[in-house]
Amino acid sequence: VPAEATAAPPTRRPRQDGVRTRETILREAVSLATIDGLEGLSIGNLAKAIGMSKSGLYAHFRSKEELQLATVDEANVIFQTEVVDPALAAPPGISQLVALCDAFFDYLWRRVFPGGCFFASTFLEMGPRYGPVKEKIAEIHIGFMKLLEGFATQAMEQKELPNDEDPVQLAFELNGMMLAADVRFILDGDIGATDFARRVVRRRLGLPVTTRDS
Amino acid sequence: VPAEATAAPPTRRPRQDGVRTRETILREAVSLATIDGLEGLSIGNLAKAIGMSKSGLYAHFRSKEELQLATVDEANVIFQTEVVDPALAAPPGISQLVALCDAFFDYLWRRVFPGGCFFASTFLEMGPRYGPVKEKIAEIHIGFMKLLEGFATQAMEQKELPNDEDPVQLAFELNGMMLAADVRFILDGDIGATDFARRVVRRRLGLPVTTRDS
Repeated sequence: VPAEATAAPPTRRPRQDGVRTRETILREAVSLATIDGLEGLSIGNLAKAIGMSKSGLYAHFRSKEELQLATVDEANVIFQTEVVDPALAAPPGISQLVALCDAFFDYLWRRVFPGGCFFASTFLEMGPRYGPVKEKIAEIHIGFMKLLEGFATQAMEQKELPNDEDPVQLAFELNGMMLAADVRFILDGDIGATDFARRVVRRRLGLPVTTRDS
Repeated sequence: VPAEATAAPPTRRPRQDGVRTRETILREAVSLATIDGLEGLSIGNLAKAIGMSKSGLYAHFRSKEELQLATVDEANVIFQTEVVDPALAAPPGISQLVALCDAFFDYLWRRVFPGGCFFASTFLEMGPRYGPVKEKIAEIHIGFMKLLEGFATQAMEQKELPNDEDPVQLAFELNGMMLAADVRFILDGDIGATDFARRVVRRRLGLPVTTRDS
């Protein structure tokens, strides 16, 4: 056993140490953006929030736009891990639809970000704008809808949904439930909002309504 | 007939005329907020956007918070006129539910505001914050949900919905459809998004699916 393992844990490095990896910086940027918005995210604000110098941050990102684009990419990696991967691990079909919604509600409930879903907020904030950041998030939105539609189509092929179901409409409705849960969770601080949303999803899919832990 | 009525129309007063009523200022503030956010709305930015002096605006609003609160009130008046009043004019019950959703989709489609629904954007922007502005929009959100729930309850009492329907869940779903339509409309510039959403609402309520003009 190396000596360090039994020694007292090292004191935490202060926030002002000025040395951060690109990933740590971006993770902080994603969190910050869920409160202040992606437009509220500037090299100056981020430097202040994480206690780094502006010049230190400029070494990583040469402009606000570059920082915003990198922040969206990092948010997408986190969303993939937190929400999409658990769904992909479920059996194809209706189980993947349920798993995706559940993982989304979990991601809200565990407060992965302080301001709710990064993408829900960013879609509405950047939607009316123009440029590379807006284009990137519009692509992410389309990709997410295609994912939901693919799961729904598979569920129909497996006869897990009624014949007259429409995968595109169902995807739209489920996406709406995720948005409505996000709004309710962040706006009313309603900690029951995600359990409620789970029940609505199950009911819509014709599945038995279970609670979070059952 | 007064002479003016047959004369050439007066040239439009230039934007920089510096004289605006409180209502005109606030209407502009609401529009601006759907692009730049309510936090992007400052006395300085608004003065610049409408070509008034900052001191002229300070005569109306003494602080950014006062301006934000007045902007939310004005947005609520507009939302009431554009979305809620047409629903209240419909026969009680399921017709009011449909009329409310249709009026919402119309309000998007007619681009009453350049950045989509003021409240959808503001709920997500201000949700994670604290203070009087957040409290006001949280109340507006609750009021809107109660309105939807009331229409749904009435529809059930009139046997226009299945017995096992749940008014609170249905209200949540319809609100989700409005949010999802807003996201799709502003993000993808999908002009078919509102017609699509109309069909989803009708299908969910078990009504014949009609198109916009039929």
